[in-house]
Amino acid sequence: MRTDKRSLNELRRLTLKPHPNKYAEGSVWIEMGDTKVLCTATVDEKVPPFMKGQGKGWITAEYSMLPRATQTRNQRESAKGKLTGRTMEIQRLIGRALRSVIDLQALGERTITLDCDVIQADGGTRTTSITGAFVALALAVHNLSLQHNFNRYPITDYLASVSVGVIQEQAMLDLNYEEDSKAKVDMNVVMTGTGKFVEIQGTGEDAPFSRDELQKLLSLSEEGIRTLIEKQKEALGPVGARIGATLV
Amino acid sequence: MRTDKRSLNELRRLTLKPHPNKYAEGSVWIEMGDTKVLCTATVDEKVPPFMKGQGKGWITAEYSMLPRATQTRNQRESAKGKLTGRTMEIQRLIGRALRSVIDLQALGERTITLDCDVIQADGGTRTTSITGAFVALALAVHNLSLQHNFNRYPITDYLASVSVGVIQEQAMLDLNYEEDSKAKVDMNVVMTGTGKFVEIQGTGEDAPFSRDELQKLLSLSEEGIRTLIEKQKEALGPVGARIGATLV
Amino acid sequence: MRTDKRSLNELRRLTLKPHPNKYAEGSVWIEMGDTKVLCTATVDEKVPPFMKGQGKGWITAEYSMLPRATQTRNQRESAKGKLTGRTMEIQRLIGRALRSVIDLQALGERTITLDCDVIQADGGTRTTSITGAFVALALAVHNLSLQHNFNRYPITDYLASVSVGVIQEQAMLDLNYEEDSKAKVDMNVVMTGTGKFVEIQGTGEDAPFSRDELQKLLSLSEEGIRTLIEKQKEALGPVGARIGATLV
Amino acid sequence: MRTDKRSLNELRRLTLKPHPNKYAEGSVWIEMGDTKVLCTATVDEKVPPFMKGQGKGWITAEYSMLPRATQTRNQRESAKGKLTGRTMEIQRLIGRALRSVIDLQALGERTITLDCDVIQADGGTRTTSITGAFVALALAVHNLSLQHNFNRYPITDYLASVSVGVIQEQAMLDLNYEEDSKAKVDMNVVMTGTGKFVEIQGTGEDAPFSRDELQKLLSLSEEGIRTLIEKQKEALGPVGARIGATLV
Amino acid sequence: MRTDKRSLNELRRLTLKPHPNKYAEGSVWIEMGDTKVLCTATVDEKVPPFMKGQGKGWITAEYSMLPRATQTRNQRESAKGKLTGRTMEIQRLIGRALRSVIDLQALGERTITLDCDVIQADGGTRTTSITGAFVALALAVHNLSLQHNFNRYPITDYLASVSVGVIQEQAMLDLNYEEDSKAKVDMNVVMTGTGKFVEIQGTGEDAPFSRDELQKLLSLSEEGIRTLIEKQKEALGPVGARIGATLV
Amino acid sequence: MRTDKRSLNELRRLTLKPHPNKYAEGSVWIEMGDTKVLCTATVDEKVPPFMKGQGKGWITAEYSMLPRATQTRNQRESAKGKLTGRTMEIQRLIGRALRSVIDLQALGERTITLDCDVIQADGGTRTTSITGAFVALALAVHNLSLQHNFNRYPITDYLASVSVGVIQEQAMLDLNYEEDSKAKVDMNVVMTGTGKFVEIQGTGEDAPFSRDELQKLLSLSEEGIRTLIEKQKEALGPVGARIGATLV
Repeated sequence: MRTDKRSLNELRRLTLKPHPNKYAEGSVWIEMGDTKVLCTATVDEKVPPFMKGQGKGWITAEYSMLPRATQTRNQRESAKGKLTGRTMEIQRLIGRALRSVIDLQALGERTITLDCDVIQADGGTRTTSITGAFVALALAVHNLSLQHNFNRYPITDYLASVSVGVIQEQAMLDLNYEEDSKAKVDMNVVMTGTGKFVEIQGTGEDAPFSRDELQKLLSLSEEGIRTLIEKQKEALGPVGARIGATLV
Repeated sequence: MRTDKRSLNELRRLTLKPHPNKYAEGSVWIEMGDTKVLCTATVDEKVPPFMKGQGKGWITAEYSMLPRATQTRNQRESAKGKLTGRTMEIQRLIGRALRSVIDLQALGERTITLDCDVIQADGGTRTTSITGAFVALALAVHNLSLQHNFNRYPITDYLASVSVGVIQEQAMLDLNYEEDSKAKVDMNVVMTGTGKFVEIQGTGEDAPFSRDELQKLLSLSEEGIRTLIEKQKEALGPVGARIGATLV
Repeated sequence: MRTDKRSLNELRRLTLKPHPNKYAEGSVWIEMGDTKVLCTATVDEKVPPFMKGQGKGWITAEYSMLPRATQTRNQRESAKGKLTGRTMEIQRLIGRALRSVIDLQALGERTITLDCDVIQADGGTRTTSITGAFVALALAVHNLSLQHNFNRYPITDYLASVSVGVIQEQAMLDLNYEEDSKAKVDMNVVMTGTGKFVEIQGTGEDAPFSRDELQKLLSLSEEGIRTLIEKQKEALGPVGARIGATLV
Repeated sequence: MRTDKRSLNELRRLTLKPHPNKYAEGSVWIEMGDTKVLCTATVDEKVPPFMKGQGKGWITAEYSMLPRATQTRNQRESAKGKLTGRTMEIQRLIGRALRSVIDLQALGERTITLDCDVIQADGGTRTTSITGAFVALALAVHNLSLQHNFNRYPITDYLASVSVGVIQEQAMLDLNYEEDSKAKVDMNVVMTGTGKFVEIQGTGEDAPFSRDELQKLLSLSEEGIRTLIEKQKEALGPVGARIGATLV
Repeated sequence: MRTDKRSLNELRRLTLKPHPNKYAEGSVWIEMGDTKVLCTATVDEKVPPFMKGQGKGWITAEYSMLPRATQTRNQRESAKGKLTGRTMEIQRLIGRALRSVIDLQALGERTITLDCDVIQADGGTRTTSITGAFVALALAVHNLSLQHNFNRYPITDYLASVSVGVIQEQAMLDLNYEEDSKAKVDMNVVMTGTGKFVEIQGTGEDAPFSRDELQKLLSLSEEGIRTLIEKQKEALGPVGARIGATLV
Repeated sequence: MRTDKRSLNELRRLTLKPHPNKYAEGSVWIEMGDTKVLCTATVDEKVPPFMKGQGKGWITAEYSMLPRATQTRNQRESAKGKLTGRTMEIQRLIGRALRSVIDLQALGERTITLDCDVIQADGGTRTTSITGAFVALALAVHNLSLQHNFNRYPITDYLASVSVGVIQEQAMLDLNYEEDSKAKVDMNVVMTGTGKFVEIQGTGEDAPFSRDELQKLLSLSEEGIRTLIEKQKEALGPVGARIGATLV
């Protein structure tokens, strides 16, 4: 049995509170158990230099943890003077994942920056950030759609993410910090509302895994992500109506 | 009349929520109007190199704003690779102010780090950080006092801070962002529970001020800080009982 | 048909030249088509601070590209003053992958650093680096074994890596640069000699992929890695004899 | 009695030598006791990006200490790779203070940079820098006025600065290093020729101070600054004639 | 006798392999004994800001060593976050030396960057880099000359470099690492095909040297460089035909 | 004729003022024409890590220019966050040159740091720094000798430096900035009191030079340095008596 009494395929309690921030074009406060992340979406009416003149938009993400989000205090990256490899890896992942469900052409020459700030960390901060950032992005794009007449709606599908892992030969869904630190295999999966994979990042540093184990982990994650996307739909309500739809 | 209908000597609504963080030795969520700051206190059983071997403790502070705490998004200092002068100035101020009411000898060879992370900014983030950080510090020291038998209680007095300013010849208490950006004179004041000044930082870059104006601003700030300290006492309740008291 | 006339499941020509460097404890020059990487292994008789006192060793990797390894010249990271996110992600991956087949306890308190310097890049530099670094590591550990009497041989299995991808609905093995830049799905797989997965990193930023497509990519990579490991065995000859063997 | 036999309200010996540098548009060598600062003013016929297109000028300052300006050698900030918080705080203060007596509109779209390099430090380096930088600025503006026909003279008033402090319950003017390190309360005051405050920065980290003590310190500083401005007028002679005057 | 049995005025075995890199506009693999350097020339059709609008080109160089080019591993400068003084000194030297035989006017508004990456180091890496970089530069300029009709050929002379030194009172040519570390006087000389000096950098940190010793070292280096330039001519063949020639 | 009417072999006016700094163990203010450098020597009773346990001392140097030491203002290296290649090259040269006349064994396990801060620059700042730094070093070593009973006096010879160059086919001594910027050949020479060379750095970027020209430049520099060392002896007086002498 799991330390917090969940069954193997059970998600932690999820909270999705829209609009916690009065300035951002879209924002959401997401809690996945004791993991708490503030996601804000900022719209900028221009694109980075490498995207200029293509008539397309851009989505980018930044990720950070407050120093005392964790059991022991971490030094701030601003004080160190540079981002750690872990932070860069995570923010590249979040941006890439979100772009997979955005029609950059339809978005037009503007950038949306998703800031994912981990207020408290208890495992799964990168997957929770993706799930929350999608909602903040959806709110910001909806806002844009009230001002701009999008020919095609720029969001082509829902998107959420969850972690899965193997602990003592058991495949489990949505690991908390304690479980994560004991897992021999650790996998982060990002999927769309139509059930396709966007990212699979599986690591067996402590114990390489077989193709069978992989299948079990994939099935668990599919199940979990389906539930997460239900919750996103509830949180967005009518704001999510046009996601994946095409206006003719 | 002020944009939010307050009278000239009226503070914004203050919220002080203890224990928002499950890991920190002390933590408080403070809201001063729409300015929201998460303050955490981390206790470390050693002191920085320059304090070693003196039998004394150390209090230090770090300050940061989330990128979208403000109307337009600010680049992260971790991405820039260095702290701005403003950030350094503020965190030096917070640390210095808190140390003024701490008996470092009584605290013993340990460091308490106060992290003040501005979740949303609407003026007065440095003064709100000081007022909140004091409460987080008091919670952490109380925790320590349950484990260690302090001869003298390490906190010698209450401490809070407020901003005052002059707008169109009117002295006002507790400026919000809009007011702050119109103020010709801007002053941050830190005071103790016994009514003494710890820091006065007044600037008249846009309009030098007379000694008379200074007197009015000081009176306003005394009044505001007295109210803030009342609220701190309410929030701390019995935990604050030994502040300023000496065990014999 | 592929631009270089390979069939879909065909690897590029592989060269593995041991001992190109006269100083390193182990070194290999690897070419995978036009991708050329110099891998050196440096043995250091101590471990990094976070591993001290555990009686275990450590394996770490660094990755870099010469500025003109690519079609257009890249600015040196030393001149920029920091590593890019891509570099950090790759060197974390290489280190993690190699550690999965090392018995750190058996290695004892020493660090082996694998430097993977890309002399020329034509796609698959990270997977080629892993395949080459394993050989350099095996040479260095063999050298160590001649001086130290390992109870258990520290290398528990062979390890190699390959990229696979989907281009115009076709799953393909070992993409060169031109193919890589057209691929909708891109996956890097690391496997052991006994056919277990160590890392799977699949990305469908441009086109999410189905579970069926995933299966095809995994099968292709299994096939490719089996061949690569044959070549590693040839290159190592008797030096590889004790890999995965346990002395009693 | 004070270590150097001054009375409580007595300034140290002041030297103001104009034109020590053959290249700068304005320069002054200032000595305040054993504190020696070289101040140069550089005129640049453009403004920083954030000021562009407003038809206004800009004044900025940089501050630095030679490594052996102090009793023990300090590491160069250029070798550390970053400015300390103290340096940033001081150069922000100097710039802000000088701007308070400049009519940026009248100055027109040009920047004047004041470099304050401390050759030897014996307390009061920031206040001495302000007093000296004002003179260098006045020399540079006078030079400009010979080439450009200013409608309004860009300098609206004189400006000087002094430190005051409390040592053993005694308020004192113009602390040297030894006094400064013993002071319980430390205050830097910047005032104009017409007796208005531009900056008040008072700190009682070691001992919070009462409103009465504050009044005494302000009176001392008013007195000291009045004298300093007399010396500035002498040093400038006819060059200072138009300061604060308006041509109609 | 020298450790590798060379006579005092004998160069090490020299290898110059053109075109080791498939992307660069010019490239050469140079070996001088066990010192191995990859030199690539990159042509960029613009000049750095400080050269703009003068109708002239620019030649610049970068130098780096792979971490395990040496007996013990060196930390990467990219990981340190900055270039060492030694690296900067060497790349400034290489650039300056190459520019001495280039007619920047004739080259036109383009930049050629020479990357000298030391694959293995056994003394004389900077002089070997210059000798190799000249050949890579010649290949790149020849390529340019096939596309652009140069009025004057931009390379005005051949250029090569060698080290000389004094060990146990003996002047020697082309020191290897072991010799270099025992030399009391160490000198790097760069000369042109017409026998003129471009750079002389002699250092006697361990033992100042007389004018007589200097003469001997200069004679040795003249002899060595003459041989090196013969080898460059062989390696370039007809490509070098127009070097130093002027079309009318 | 030269712009300042000097003859070809004439030095600029030299000033050497000892003890301009009240804290440093040795200091000198040196002026060579309009080039002005403050040199301070700081004694530290320990050596850097790479020298530990050898029973020997260390001499190191740092060099910097004030931002307005030159005709146009230079950005501070502390603001850029790194040293330029030029600065590193110069401070390595100064340290190396001074070490050539120091018996590090005799000095014992202590470090002397020479700070050369250019207050005003008019050509020859590096050579002037060496000439001045030697005097500051001699003052500091003399001070040390009053407290420690050196068996051998740690300074083995005098040391000075001068620049020479070729302008319009004329070899000239001690170039000022205007001359330096027109020189086709530029050489810095460091010599000892007994007439030996410590450093020769000659550059003919704009025009390679013949061996004959080199001889002329060397003769000029020998002559100039002889005069400079006379001046150093005058400035040091009896303090210089033991330089080069050995106590038995």
